[in-house]
Amino acid sequence: MSDMLKALKWRYATKKFDTTKKLSEEQLALLKESLRLSPSSFGLQPWHFIVVEDVELRKKLRTAGYDQPQITDASHFIVLATEKNVDASLVEKFVENVATTRNIPVESLTGLRDMLNGAVGMKGEEGAREWAARQVYIALGVLLATAASEGIDAAPMEGFDPEQFDVILGLTERGLTSRVMVALGFRASDDPATDMAKVRYAEEQVFTTM
Amino acid sequence: MSDMLKALKWRYATKKFDTTKKLSEEQLALLKESLRLSPSSFGLQPWHFIVVEDVELRKKLRTAGYDQPQITDASHFIVLATEKNVDASLVEKFVENVATTRNIPVESLTGLRDMLNGAVGMKGEEGAREWAARQVYIALGVLLATAASEGIDAAPMEGFDPEQFDVILGLTERGLTSRVMVALGFRASDDPATDMAKVRYAEEQVFTTM
Repeated sequence: MSDMLKALKWRYATKKFDTTKKLSEEQLALLKESLRLSPSSFGLQPWHFIVVEDVELRKKLRTAGYDQPQITDASHFIVLATEKNVDASLVEKFVENVATTRNIPVESLTGLRDMLNGAVGMKGEEGAREWAARQVYIALGVLLATAASEGIDAAPMEGFDPEQFDVILGLTERGLTSRVMVALGFRASDDPATDMAKVRYAEEQVFTTM
Repeated sequence: MSDMLKALKWRYATKKFDTTKKLSEEQLALLKESLRLSPSSFGLQPWHFIVVEDVELRKKLRTAGYDQPQITDASHFIVLATEKNVDASLVEKFVENVATTRNIPVESLTGLRDMLNGAVGMKGEEGAREWAARQVYIALGVLLATAASEGIDAAPMEGFDPEQFDVILGLTERGLTSRVMVALGFRASDDPATDMAKVRYAEEQVFTTM
């Protein structure tokens, strides 16, 4: 079996983390880099990631996160946020990023800018927000696969109050909004969830070949 | 550098596939298994994956997909779909899946069923649909990471007419809807996109540590 499949079978949504085991700086850097490199539609990267290390902040987030213990107990805790509004200013920032990275004049990217503004405009304001939210779930998938492949445990969590999170983390005034969160670290030896069989539909239930 | 980061730097949204290079059966099985094993909220797996092998179907999909050549030219082509309605029947199917997998009586899962129905109900009909769409983007992220780690090229694509896709693939009557598609195979030696520098924001632009 490939290493990746082994990793995907090994991983599970960790319920109880070992509070004494911490990610090394190298491990944290690797996980962050997997988020940074994640694919997104048009490569627009309409996201921002908040690594919350402050203990008091994590306590507040736990309160706004249905008291889920992973928020405070895991080695690290990352909130995956998106731009609240996906608009021409985001496109402009991206076009400048393309010009700088590829060392080409920004004036040569008029076609790209127009195409992106057209594509974003077609979605409408709410549609573009939801589209941004979907993109950050790609990054979540890449992060979870990367963590598993490195033997790092993770608990992705959607259960929290985004408005409270945005206030606690100061995201509102930055035009960002919390979408999903991930606790990262190492499973406790007595996490009861570790030994529960992974529940997945059989191949024939989720695949059609035609 | 870790193998995964090398893979994530190697990958890119392939524009031109080598039409003569095909995935082996083992490679296809591995990619499918990564989708099947993908995490989702509550483990609900509100998705279905359509592997389109039929040449004529792929031509029709290309027409409904803005004539993007990857749809017909890549070795394999997968449409990631979700349940159109996320409701009590989906929860019931999942609860039965849990009971069977873990060899426990379904009667013991009343609490789980109630919790899931409550969580899904809180989202509202449209909210639950969008939530399902987000979940399949986790699977997309896992698939793209897995493909890269195996040296398999991929082109994730959002540009298509979902209504036309649903009709062509017969998804409508199955209660499914197309969300995103992925062409898989191997880059052509003359794909002009291969040598373009990957555009990503610098770490400090997409991360905040607090």
